Amino acid sequence: MEILDGRWEKEVTDWDTLLGDSALNQTAVIDGAIHSIRNMGDVAFVILRRREGLFQTVLENEKADISIHDLKEAMTVRVTGIVTEEERAPHGRELRITGIEILSSPAEPLPMAIDKWKLNTSLEAKLNLRPIALRNIQERSKFKIQEALVRAFRDYLYAHGFTEIHTPKIGARGAEGGANLFKLSYFHKPAVLAQSPQFYKQMMVGVFDRVFETGPVFRAEKHNTKRHLNEYTSLDFEMGYIDGFEEIMAMETGFLQYAMELLKKDYAKELEILKVKLPDASRIPAVRFDEAKQLVSKKYDRKIRNLFDLEPEEEALIGQYFKEEYNADFVFVTHYPSKKRPFYAMDDPADERFTLSFDLLFHGLEITTGGQRIHDYNALKAKIAARGMEEEGMEQYLDTFKHGMPPHGGLGIGLERLTMQLLGEENVRETCLFPRDLNRLEP
Amino acid sequence: MEILDGRWEKEVTDWDTLLGDSALNQTAVIDGAIHSIRNMGDVAFVILRRREGLFQTVLENEKADISIHDLKEAMTVRVTGIVTEEERAPHGRELRITGIEILSSPAEPLPMAIDKWKLNTSLEAKLNLRPIALRNIQERSKFKIQEALVRAFRDYLYAHGFTEIHTPKIGARGAEGGANLFKLSYFHKPAVLAQSPQFYKQMMVGVFDRVFETGPVFRAEKHNTKRHLNEYTSLDFEMGYIDGFEEIMAMETGFLQYAMELLKKDYAKELEILKVKLPDASRIPAVRFDEAKQLVSKKYDRKIRNLFDLEPEEEALIGQYFKEEYNADFVFVTHYPSKKRPFYAMDDPADERFTLSFDLLFHGLEITTGGQRIHDYNALKAKIAARGMEEEGMEQYLDTFKHGMPPHGGLGIGLERLTMQLLGEENVRETCLFPRDLNRLEP
Repeated sequence: MEILDGRWEKEVTDWDTLLGDSALNQTAVIDGAIHSIRNMGDVAFVILRRREGLFQTVLENEKADISIHDLKEAMTVRVTGIVTEEERAPHGRELRITGIEILSSPAEPLPMAIDKWKLNTSLEAKLNLRPIALRNIQERSKFKIQEALVRAFRDYLYAHGFTEIHTPKIGARGAEGGANLFKLSYFHKPAVLAQSPQFYKQMMVGVFDRVFETGPVFRAEKHNTKRHLNEYTSLDFEMGYIDGFEEIMAMETGFLQYAMELLKKDYAKELEILKVKLPDASRIPAVRFDEAKQLVSKKYDRKIRNLFDLEPEEEALIGQYFKEEYNADFVFVTHYPSKKRPFYAMDDPADERFTLSFDLLFHGLEITTGGQRIHDYNALKAKIAARGMEEEGMEQYLDTFKHGMPPHGGLGIGLERLTMQLLGEENVRETCLFPRDLNRLEP
Repeated sequence: MEILDGRWEKEVTDWDTLLGDSALNQTAVIDGAIHSIRNMGDVAFVILRRREGLFQTVLENEKADISIHDLKEAMTVRVTGIVTEEERAPHGRELRITGIEILSSPAEPLPMAIDKWKLNTSLEAKLNLRPIALRNIQERSKFKIQEALVRAFRDYLYAHGFTEIHTPKIGARGAEGGANLFKLSYFHKPAVLAQSPQFYKQMMVGVFDRVFETGPVFRAEKHNTKRHLNEYTSLDFEMGYIDGFEEIMAMETGFLQYAMELLKKDYAKELEILKVKLPDASRIPAVRFDEAKQLVSKKYDRKIRNLFDLEPEEEALIGQYFKEEYNADFVFVTHYPSKKRPFYAMDDPADERFTLSFDLLFHGLEITTGGQRIHDYNALKAKIAARGMEEEGMEQYLDTFKHGMPPHGGLGIGLERLTMQLLGEENVRETCLFPRDLNRLEP
C-alpha cells in the first residue's frame, strides 16, 4: 500500500534554482510548452513557456538525439541540458539541450501568433479563441494582476477582522427588486440568480460584525457597453459598528493601498510586462455628488441636465477634473440622490433627498458603490412602504433587523472593472477570462 | 474637501489591547451586541458579543446614568467603563460600566435562546432562522473553521505556483453531460448553470500551467440526503506537467497538512469552542478501488454486489477499515472504474476498465474526486465517440487540446463536506450558511 506524505520530488529543476548561481554550467531539467522556434540552421532556439515566464533552450543539431524538425510549436516537452550564461537570452541564461522528451503534440498548428509580444488581433477574435489567445505572455499577465487584486482584498480584510462568507447564488428573489434578474426554475419553483450578496452580507453583520465575499454576481442588463458584463466577480464587504459611511471609504482606501503594495512586491514581473504605472492610492479626495456636478459644469462649460443623475460622461469629467486639479487617480463621490439608490440605503438626516453613500471613480469610471444601510427595523419598513414595494419574499431579511442590527454599511467592487482601469484597457471584456454579454455565452 | 488616507481612528478599544496588561484599571470603550443579561438586583452582568468573542460588562445601578431596565438582549451598544480583573469572567476581566450609548434596539425579543452554549433546536428551525441562530457562539464558529479551510487552500496553492481564476457560472452547456443541470434562459438562448469549472480549469492549464478556483457549483440532483446540496462551494485545482495522478494526491495531502497547521495557529479559539480534534493528515494511505472493496468485504463479511460501483455504505466501511487498521482519518481510493468517471478521465493503460483517478474519503465520506485527464486531442475525440457523445457545444474545449495541452489532472473538494467531516456533523446543511436543497430556496 502506498502512503502519501505530501511530498513529491520533481525531476524538473525549480525555477528559482534554474536562475540561481548554483545552476550555472550544471545539468538541469525544464518542462514547458514550445512557445516559439527560431531555426538558424546548425542551431535552433527553442523558447519554452512556463508559468514563471519564458526560457530559452538551444538545440545544436549534432549534440542531441533529436532533430529540430521533430519539434513544433505548442508541443509540451521535458528538456534536459546544461545551463549556460547567455546575455542575449531572457534572464541572461539558456539551456543547451542534451535530451528532449516530448510530452504531448498538437494536432494542428496554432491559429494565431501567440509568440508575438503584442497580440495583434481584434478583441472579438481573442475572445473566440480565448484559451489559445491567453497563451500570449502579455494577455495572461493581465490575469495575474487580477489575481493580485482579489488576493489583496481578502488578505487586507482578514487582517481587519472580517470573516469570509459564501452565500447562495440561487434564491427566491433578488436584492435590488425585480428588474435585471436572470430567472430559472428550481425544482418547479420560480427562482433567480443573485444580483449581489447584499441581503446575505447584511444579515451576516449581525453574526460576524464584519464579512466579505468574493464571488460571481449576475445582471440581466440589456445594455452592451464597453464597461458592462452580465456576469462578473464582485468583491463585497459589509461592516458593523461603523462611525459613519466615511469609515467604509477609509477601509476601501486601505485596501487599495495594500493592493498596490502587493502588486509591487509580488507581481513586479507582470507590471513590467504590461508597463503598468500604478495609481496613487495614498490620498483619495471625497466630493459631494452635487458639488462634483457643479465643479465639472463650471470648468468644462457643461450644462447640468439633471440634478439627481450622473451621466457616464460626467463621471469621466469628474475623473478628469480631479486628475487635473489634484493629480488624483481615484475620487470618492458621496451623497448620491436617494432616488438613485436602493431602498436599504440610509438617507442623510440633514437632507433626505440624498443618502449616506458613495461611488468610487477610478480614472473616471465607477468601480465601487457603497454606503451606510438602514439598520432600524421600523425605519426599513417605512422606507419599503414609502417606495411602494412589497415585503413579500423579504421576511427573513426583515426579521434580522427586527431582532437587532448594529449600524453598518459596505460596498461592492467590480473586479473586472478595477483590473480594466488599472491596466488602462478600453473594454472590460479584456479583463474577464470568459466574458458573458448579450451575445456571448461561449466559450 | 475631505481627503481619505486609509486611516480611521476608532474610539473603541482594540480587542488585544483590552485583554493586554496596559488596559487594566484603565478606561476602555467596547461596542457589541447584548448577548445576555443577568440581573442580580444591585448589579447586572451584561455580556457583549463581538466578532472576537464574548466580553463581560457590569452595571452597578448607582454608578451609571442608565438603568438595567433600559437594556435588553439584542440591543447594540457602545459601552464605556473601567477594565477590572475578574477571575470568573471570560478572559479573566470585565468592564465596570460608567456610560452606555445605545446604538440600536430590536423591535421584538429573540425567537430563540442564542445565548445558550449549545443551541438546542432542530436543524430545520436553525435553518429557518439562520441569521439569528448563527449569533450563537458555537454555531458561528463552524464558519470560522470553514474560512480557515478555504483560506488554507488558496494560500497553499499560491505558494505552489497556482494562478487563481474566475470562470463563468452561466454557460451554453455543462461539463459532465446533460443530466443534473439547472437550465435558464439567457436573453432567449438556452443556458445552464455550471456543475463544475472542469472545462475552464483544464483550458487554463494550457495558459498558467497550474490554476485553482474557489466558487459555487450547481447540481440539479434530486436526492435529498444528509450529504448533498444543490449549490455548494467547490475548491478546484488543475495542474499541468504532472508525473502521474499520484502527484495530485500529494498536492492535496500537502494542502490538508497546511490547513491543519493554519487551524492550530489562527483558529485555536474556534477549535476549542467546538471541541474539534484535528485529524491526522501527515500520512494518508492510498488503496485501489477493487482492493478496497475486497478488504471491507472480507473484514466485515459483506458481499460485493457490483465490482464497478461503490455504495455509500462501502465508503463508510472503507473509512472504518483504515481507521481500525492504520488509525487513518483520510484514505485515497484510486483507480475508479472508467464507467463511473466522466469521458475526460484518463483510463489506466494497464487496464482500461479503470482510470488514473481517485476519491479522497474523510472519516468514510467522499470529499474529493480527482484524477489525471486525457490531454491528447485524438484520444479525447475517440473517447467521446466511444461513449456515443456529441462534440457539439464542446468545440472550444476540444480546440484547446487540438493546439496542444500538457499532461495534467486535478481535483474538486466540496468545502461544506470537508467542514462537516472536520466538525463531526451529521448533516452537510450544518456547515452551509444558507443551504439549497430540494425543498429549501430561502432564506
